[in-house]
Amino acid sequence: ARPRVGYFFTGKTGFELLSEKLKEVKVRDFQSIPIVIKENDSVYDAISKMFLEDVGTLFVVDDQSLLTGVVSRKDLLRASLGNQELTSLPVHIIMTRMPNVTICRKDDYLIGAAKQLINKQIDGLPVVEDTEKGLQVIGRITKTNMTKALVEFTSNDNLQGG
Amino acid sequence: ARPRVGYFFTGKTGFELLSEKLKEVKVRDFQSIPIVIKENDSVYDAISKMFLEDVGTLFVVDDQSLLTGVVSRKDLLRASLGNQELTSLPVHIIMTRMPNVTICRKDDYLIGAAKQLINKQIDGLPVVEDTEKGLQVIGRITKTNMTKALVEFTSNDNLQGG
Repeated sequence: ARPRVGYFFTGKTGFELLSEKLKEVKVRDFQSIPIVIKENDSVYDAISKMFLEDVGTLFVVDDQSLLTGVVSRKDLLRASLGNQELTSLPVHIIMTRMPNVTICRKDDYLIGAAKQLINKQIDGLPVVEDTEKGLQVIGRITKTNMTKALVEFTSNDNLQGG
Repeated sequence: ARPRVGYFFTGKTGFELLSEKLKEVKVRDFQSIPIVIKENDSVYDAISKMFLEDVGTLFVVDDQSLLTGVVSRKDLLRASLGNQELTSLPVHIIMTRMPNVTICRKDDYLIGAAKQLINKQIDGLPVVEDTEKGLQVIGRITKTNMTKALVEFTSNDNLQGG
């Protein structure tokens, strides 16, 4: 009796096992570093930073580096269409403000974060850590990370290890 | 001897089996409808359409509806920062032009398209069909589709069916 016999016999439980395994992957396993901007920085600065860092979402923080909001490429595009002077318009005017920002934590399940991105129709989430003063931004998780996860999950090598 | 015995015995081959199955998923299984714009339409029209349709990438076509280029949210944001009149600037001036556009076809593997998105650092690809006159755009595949695929792949129900 070589393993190949069991392979056909328990295919379905094999699927369940892998599916369970994928469900256990955490945000921390795929998160990227966060790109932040101060809430009094201008919309122009935000756009520049977005190009410089090549990200689609910036996290907005206050003087204590605590999360106060989020701006997306879409928010900035909308602002740039208005007749406003972008260098004097502070980013906090156009940002999505806490508590309306969808957040996640590094020990959340990756699939939970993926579902949030789909349901809220957003491109990225800040990964936060709770402190006494408020929420510290420690990472970002985006549709790019999800696409990378999809590619990794279909590579046998990466699945059988852990 | 219940299946559970084989479950532990052949876990690894179960992984391989599912991984193989995921690799067989095609672009057609997850693609969305394409949003197109004519190459002589203005950048302002393109931005309006992007908001109206809520997409991150527009495909640019000629008078015969053949693919000639692509514009991303990033391209439009860059254009809107310039001192140009957006209503009189045609989209073909700022688009990424064929043959520099990464394309895919509906029978390509989804994972292949995912790798293209990662490697080329883009958010979406046009799904094209070859005709005698040129490439017809029949769909789009984006990081949003990849995120949805990731969520579906971790649902047992969707995997064991086909």
